[in-house]
Amino acid sequence: MRAIALTMGDSAGIGPEIALETWVRRREAAVPPFVYLGGRDHVDALAATLGLNVPVETVSGPAEAADVFMDSFPVLPIALSAPVVCGKPDPSNGPATIEAIDRAVELAGSGEAAAVVTNPIGKAVLYRCGFRHPGHTEYLADLCGSVSPPAMMLVCDTLRVVPVTVHLPLAEAAKALTVDAIVHCGRTAAAGLARDFGIRAPRLAVAGLNPHAGESGHLGREEIEIVEPAIDILRRDGIQVEGPSPADTLFHEGARRDYDAALCMYHDQALIPIKTLDFFGGVNVTLGLPIVRTSPDHGTGYDIAGKGAARPDSLIAALRLAATMAGTRAGTPDALA
Amino acid sequence: MRAIALTMGDSAGIGPEIALETWVRRREAAVPPFVYLGGRDHVDALAATLGLNVPVETVSGPAEAADVFMDSFPVLPIALSAPVVCGKPDPSNGPATIEAIDRAVELAGSGEAAAVVTNPIGKAVLYRCGFRHPGHTEYLADLCGSVSPPAMMLVCDTLRVVPVTVHLPLAEAAKALTVDAIVHCGRTAAAGLARDFGIRAPRLAVAGLNPHAGESGHLGREEIEIVEPAIDILRRDGIQVEGPSPADTLFHEGARRDYDAALCMYHDQALIPIKTLDFFGGVNVTLGLPIVRTSPDHGTGYDIAGKGAARPDSLIAALRLAATMAGTRAGTPDALA
Repeated sequence: MRAIALTMGDSAGIGPEIALETWVRRREAAVPPFVYLGGRDHVDALAATLGLNVPVETVSGPAEAADVFMDSFPVLPIALSAPVVCGKPDPSNGPATIEAIDRAVELAGSGEAAAVVTNPIGKAVLYRCGFRHPGHTEYLADLCGSVSPPAMMLVCDTLRVVPVTVHLPLAEAAKALTVDAIVHCGRTAAAGLARDFGIRAPRLAVAGLNPHAGESGHLGREEIEIVEPAIDILRRDGIQVEGPSPADTLFHEGARRDYDAALCMYHDQALIPIKTLDFFGGVNVTLGLPIVRTSPDHGTGYDIAGKGAARPDSLIAALRLAATMAGTRAGTPDALA
Repeated sequence: MRAIALTMGDSAGIGPEIALETWVRRREAAVPPFVYLGGRDHVDALAATLGLNVPVETVSGPAEAADVFMDSFPVLPIALSAPVVCGKPDPSNGPATIEAIDRAVELAGSGEAAAVVTNPIGKAVLYRCGFRHPGHTEYLADLCGSVSPPAMMLVCDTLRVVPVTVHLPLAEAAKALTVDAIVHCGRTAAAGLARDFGIRAPRLAVAGLNPHAGESGHLGREEIEIVEPAIDILRRDGIQVEGPSPADTLFHEGARRDYDAALCMYHDQALIPIKTLDFFGGVNVTLGLPIVRTSPDHGTGYDIAGKGAARPDSLIAALRLAATMAGTRAGTPDALA
């Protein structure tokens, strides 16, 4: 039985408390066993502050964590350099944040952990202690030795979306869109749906960039010049692809039945529908890594950290989905067997 | 008792058949009385083709239409020049399409009709017979002698959205966004919510243009340079405005409770959430006209016209909303009293 490696993220954010809240709900929410990689003293103190009855236990690794999980909150300790002040990120704790990620990837890479689930990090504070990667996902890809960039998929119970461009100003997203980027995301999504979601012949829907998917060129030519050629390439790969479709026609209940994931051309085209349908329970999945990695679909929440106000819904969903994905990849119904 | 003036739109599209289907459901769907402005022979023939038992009756105007509405489908005839072939728009019928709009606006302007509800037109075919306006709404504004441009609001039971830019390629929408456009839409929306929806102190939410509403300028500067200054002006007008907010945080159930309408910066930012929530029942409302005007939130549907496949949901919702708006504007619970 393998536990999931759960990183602390930025300890000054909501990561540690949503980990504790998740453990408290382990029975009712069927949370798979995890091992928390982070500061033990901080979770002890935080549990007391929040009035949570959580027996914290230091463990040697994921196997022991799985054994004790129903009775105690298992921690693989990563020493913090400075006391945590909730809501006040401290660069001197940055190296520990990064060490937790490194250890989690090692444990998943060796097979000791079933998957990696990462709590949110604060990039600004990590940059001040030497972090040089554009983001969490790029760092993970680098640690895993991935040669091609991973793709982000956002998942809730009723929708999966893959944004082809992500954190760009809207005007730049239109310029950054390329045939190669769409093809890469489509191939990565199709492979991930097959390997980790058990969908033998994944069906992709592709949104247009422009209103009405460009209306035959009257409202923009990117559909004709970029999206359609990309769809042709994906179809030649043997992937079932429909589109480009007007984005506003893709996300209602009836439309969602016709595909397994929607490729979206920019951030909000993907994020608006999924967060409209399920604001709290969405999960961020990284496709194209050699390990299974998910994360809650929210940030560090510095403004609410330590107050007991953060909802663990997305972390719970991220852990459950990671276990299911790891199990599917391993060919067993779940990763815990 | 006043009926609503309902235009035929392009008779080769789905307008006539959804009008008939709406009338058939007048009791169960509590459809307010309307008078159909269009070709009488065509609706007679269409009802027969579709196997609908609809007694069509020629009337002299909205008052007579209201009297007969429960027993027959009232038509104020507009002569078509050529036989209608469903799915095949014919420019020779364009002048009749336009005449129906002209008559409807006259009837609402004089107070004989409670409101105007328009069926979809095919702009391409109208351009071939001399139509020179960018769209349906601009034509109506011109007929009404409006000095400032109207604003489009899309309405379903759980959401109202106002796109500030509409039918532009995505890259151009970012460039076209101005302080003036946001302020104009905000003022028009607030005035419309007060006058036609009975909301004394309307609350507006304003979406950012960029992902994460620009993240303090890291993901685009339009929030700082355009959206925030517009919000300041609207607040100085005394309008309750929140934003700019990340668009993906605005449309879940909890967020929707905090505002009466959301101002969206581009077409799909408005259309994705409303069509995700209610694909078939959305209504297009034109704010800022001297008359009440709504329309179904779909196109001509040439591909399905005449087959009995078109759903009347949006037209029914458009008629019901128009009656409610006209009643609110007139100070009575509904426009039919």
